[in-house]
Amino acid sequence: MARGDDDFQRARRPEQKRQREAAILEAARRLALRDGVRNISLADIAADVGMHKTALLRYFGTREEIYLHIATEAWQEWAKSLSAALGELSLGDVPGIAKAFATSLDMRPLLCDLFTHAPLNLERNVSLTAVITFKLSAITAVKILTDAVRELLPTLTEDDGNELLVGITTLAAGLWQLGHPPPHVAKLYVEHPAMSHTAIEFVSAITRLTETLALGLLAKRAR
Amino acid sequence: MARGDDDFQRARRPEQKRQREAAILEAARRLALRDGVRNISLADIAADVGMHKTALLRYFGTREEIYLHIATEAWQEWAKSLSAALGELSLGDVPGIAKAFATSLDMRPLLCDLFTHAPLNLERNVSLTAVITFKLSAITAVKILTDAVRELLPTLTEDDGNELLVGITTLAAGLWQLGHPPPHVAKLYVEHPAMSHTAIEFVSAITRLTETLALGLLAKRAR
Repeated sequence: MARGDDDFQRARRPEQKRQREAAILEAARRLALRDGVRNISLADIAADVGMHKTALLRYFGTREEIYLHIATEAWQEWAKSLSAALGELSLGDVPGIAKAFATSLDMRPLLCDLFTHAPLNLERNVSLTAVITFKLSAITAVKILTDAVRELLPTLTEDDGNELLVGITTLAAGLWQLGHPPPHVAKLYVEHPAMSHTAIEFVSAITRLTETLALGLLAKRAR
Repeated sequence: MARGDDDFQRARRPEQKRQREAAILEAARRLALRDGVRNISLADIAADVGMHKTALLRYFGTREEIYLHIATEAWQEWAKSLSAALGELSLGDVPGIAKAFATSLDMRPLLCDLFTHAPLNLERNVSLTAVITFKLSAITAVKILTDAVRELLPTLTEDDGNELLVGITTLAAGLWQLGHPPPHVAKLYVEHPAMSHTAIEFVSAITRLTETLALGLLAKRAR
């Protein structure tokens, strides 16, 4: 808690309001990266940013609304960055596509954690407007990435591209959780060799499965 | 709450203990099927089975221990049933394999919900013994299903089979949640056509993705 409530007492000018909103989102991001989205409460965020909880409620109504807002931005940022990386690849480069997806997801642990928690929790305690904004953002991001993949693999249909994106993001959600087990499970993997092959190494698992999905879709179109 | 505490006051004989344990597990299953694993507390289960919470604690230490026990059994039952169904198929029948997986998962909503919650929650508040028992059960089930798939697709390696099983179960976890949204999100899909294509129809999505993964693995081995 670096700043006192005094700094946030009045924020009447739009510029000040934007600064406060940005500070709230930044604190929410930092805490979630450290402890996981599910472990952060609205009170944690308020304490970290140095605001009273009642003051914070003027900006966001629930913790879910904060994290759905962060998820909305994170989808857009990911789509922009990954589509640029895909744009550098050569036609038909399936291993390159798989590596680009896996690398970009590995660099975005908060996005992967949000892939899990958006449908499970975040869409449940927010306004309808917040859900619509989030869905439209995700739909737009999927379209950008689908188009970028289809530039490289032109035999794939739009439905194929959608299937690939749904597959990769759903796998990233689950494998990220499996790849980051709680401490006592991580210890179990080290101490019991028979268990260790259930330990998932996130990047290699996502790389392999993305390549497998892309090859499977190409095989369907080649029949 | 059909029975009073009197019925459960003393359970000194092994047979009575087994009956009580079975009643606890049955209540936990029924409640989770109705409301979702994450919404059921130890107190809910105790109330449903008509026991004091302190009496229930003699059988299971935490709600996570109950559901991890149920997950252990559910993996075994699924592997047995699905491997029998796969045994009926002809060599190389990829669409048949995809349909068998999707049908068997659709018939087991509790298993799909447990796929999500085992790594996310259930492994976190239980004894090490319970985690080991669960992992061994899942490993055995994966081996049974991997062998059954490789009988039908003999060019696949054991690693390929593992990748297929990790892929399908991870996808089933995420797609099951996406396919069963909370009421206000389900309403959104109906009312806003632009959103509706993000609505996932579980069986068709799992069927398509299982087929894609299998074809992708076969394509890798054919190179």
